[in-house]
Amino acid sequence: MMIRNAAYTTKSSLRMVSCRYFSGEPACPSVTTPIPGPKSKALMDDLNKIQSMDSVSFFVDYEKSYGNYIIDADGNTILDMFTNISSIPIGYNHPALLNAFNSESKIKQLVNRPALGVYPGVNWSQQLRDILVSAAPKGLDQVTTMMCGSCSNENAFKLMFFKYMDKQRGGRAFNDEENESCMVNLAPGTPNLAVLSFHGGFHGRTAASLSCTHSKAIHKLDIPLFQWPACDFPRYKYPLHENERENRLEDDRCLAQVEETIEAQEIKGVPVTGIIVEPIQCEGGDNIGSNYWFQQLQKICSKYDIVYHIDEVQTGGGPSGKLWAHEWFELDGPPDVVTFSKKMLTGGLYHKKELRPKQGFRIFNTWVGDPGKLILLEMLF
Amino acid sequence: MMIRNAAYTTKSSLRMVSCRYFSGEPACPSVTTPIPGPKSKALMDDLNKIQSMDSVSFFVDYEKSYGNYIIDADGNTILDMFTNISSIPIGYNHPALLNAFNSESKIKQLVNRPALGVYPGVNWSQQLRDILVSAAPKGLDQVTTMMCGSCSNENAFKLMFFKYMDKQRGGRAFNDEENESCMVNLAPGTPNLAVLSFHGGFHGRTAASLSCTHSKAIHKLDIPLFQWPACDFPRYKYPLHENERENRLEDDRCLAQVEETIEAQEIKGVPVTGIIVEPIQCEGGDNIGSNYWFQQLQKICSKYDIVYHIDEVQTGGGPSGKLWAHEWFELDGPPDVVTFSKKMLTGGLYHKKELRPKQGFRIFNTWVGDPGKLILLEMLF
Repeated sequence: MMIRNAAYTTKSSLRMVSCRYFSGEPACPSVTTPIPGPKSKALMDDLNKIQSMDSVSFFVDYEKSYGNYIIDADGNTILDMFTNISSIPIGYNHPALLNAFNSESKIKQLVNRPALGVYPGVNWSQQLRDILVSAAPKGLDQVTTMMCGSCSNENAFKLMFFKYMDKQRGGRAFNDEENESCMVNLAPGTPNLAVLSFHGGFHGRTAASLSCTHSKAIHKLDIPLFQWPACDFPRYKYPLHENERENRLEDDRCLAQVEETIEAQEIKGVPVTGIIVEPIQCEGGDNIGSNYWFQQLQKICSKYDIVYHIDEVQTGGGPSGKLWAHEWFELDGPPDVVTFSKKMLTGGLYHKKELRPKQGFRIFNTWVGDPGKLILLEMLF
Repeated sequence: MMIRNAAYTTKSSLRMVSCRYFSGEPACPSVTTPIPGPKSKALMDDLNKIQSMDSVSFFVDYEKSYGNYIIDADGNTILDMFTNISSIPIGYNHPALLNAFNSESKIKQLVNRPALGVYPGVNWSQQLRDILVSAAPKGLDQVTTMMCGSCSNENAFKLMFFKYMDKQRGGRAFNDEENESCMVNLAPGTPNLAVLSFHGGFHGRTAASLSCTHSKAIHKLDIPLFQWPACDFPRYKYPLHENERENRLEDDRCLAQVEETIEAQEIKGVPVTGIIVEPIQCEGGDNIGSNYWFQQLQKICSKYDIVYHIDEVQTGGGPSGKLWAHEWFELDGPPDVVTFSKKMLTGGLYHKKELRPKQGFRIFNTWVGDPGKLILLEMLF
């Protein structure tokens, strides 16, 4: 896989990699105007008339951008260390991507976008196997595409809710009371369940995923959310090798908090059905957890028979040096669910077979992803 | 706009339209195997190994499908009355769409997909104007793209929450208590607010949009949701012209229920911040509301200063005979928000300028849509 590692920071290593994949890449950054420059500012004023998007940093000339270098509207050549919020996996205008739609067959797949859950194309299952199953984290053999990371997480939560409630029902079919009450969002059909997440984590911005996001107030203010519990993600002392004992105590403190929370939620009547965690907290400030911490979290999930969901939306696709960051953790078997998006170009979720919903239309939406994105993703492997 | 009207059912009218846009379209359906046929069944078995997707009807040969005709894996030629869950706006393999990516410039836009909220391309604002603003419902001059209908609705809800809470605060900035409490999903930063929806409606499957969906139990069972109120969508007696008096009483009964619900929610401490309604209930069983009903709903929203949100995800893009179905309703000014997706190829929301969020990063996500979809959409206008 040709995923570029954004951690290359010295000029020599950067040029080495550049030569390998991007001959003709600019040799170094070149900034000639303030950023945003006058052309970006004029475009901001223009965009501002039709939408409030105060988050825009500058406008980009995507025709000229190349490799790791992003060229802005004012002609500044900027080294992109962050790959467009982690979603440009092999650099700008990579020749392989520019050639991805070079056949009528692929253009037809792009423009005749199906409702994949009802009318998939004849080659869909094979594409999933060749492109997504072949990249799956070891031990996870089920995959469903989605449109983005938030949606992938929301659907992963559904798998935890289904598992938990199926166990509560002892595997029996839905009864009339459940079928009727869920139509007006009341118990027992609509149960009061929780997902456990961590302070500092980011998992998206739709209501359920935002309920698990705890990185910045501006994302959350004014929006009604589920009152699901959040626990501490460990905060270590550095250098790690000089603070092993203290950091282990920090891991154990945080792990104890997770167990206490699971038990408290049970008593409160809002049981925890699963844990969602990032392998590296990114939006919350680049916080790492030890292998021990991730291993013990998995043991806690086993102990309470809840779902271990690793959110690799930001870390999946190679930036950690492995295709899936959790592969560093030497876990005792795979997590139950791994979600992805960004560098993988399509959203989606991998999961264990035992989490398959028993009925149709439970993990479903109009498009269930976009085959056009798999055509691009195929170029990365 | 060349949107095809799926209501053409007679052979002669269908052929007439076919000749106009799709010379070479099959003259009539031709079914030679049971559906799903043996090839579809084999593909279902194969897909079933890697995902639970019991919703699949049959597999489709998208290379051979043409115009209004979908050709399945077994060679059956089927008249597609439902345009792939309303998301194939001008038929399969339309020549205009096949030619949409015929320049290097457009391929570059497709493969260098930006984080539009931070690093939009230099032509993004112009594309939004040319393609989406030019198609906007009259009176709505703000537009933001999203990935799908669910996500569009979730973000429209955010606009109603922001408006409501900004009014509660009298326009002042957030205080420390709000900033801190929202990080753990507690009031006052995370308020308890509601969206009012209607029985039979469908608005998507992420947590907030699913809370407003009331069409089928299988979509909702086991998933925790917000206990937001649902009211009756009118159910008329037919033929309409013979039952005018009774149907007006039905409208008034439903409208009174809406007002009572808004007042009851206020007392309950979970105020209604807006109403979401489809111009035609589709997934809930093709239910229509009168112009009077939609006009009065708008008056109720004005009276209580809440947001009138018309969800045109299923109806937008032409299938009603107007580009936006609510244009039939002779409303006293535009609704406050109109969401779209499916036939529009990209998700998104149009809204009034007064609903613009005051700060950046409030309506935001990694991609904020996909410029590649606008290149296709441009072919429809």
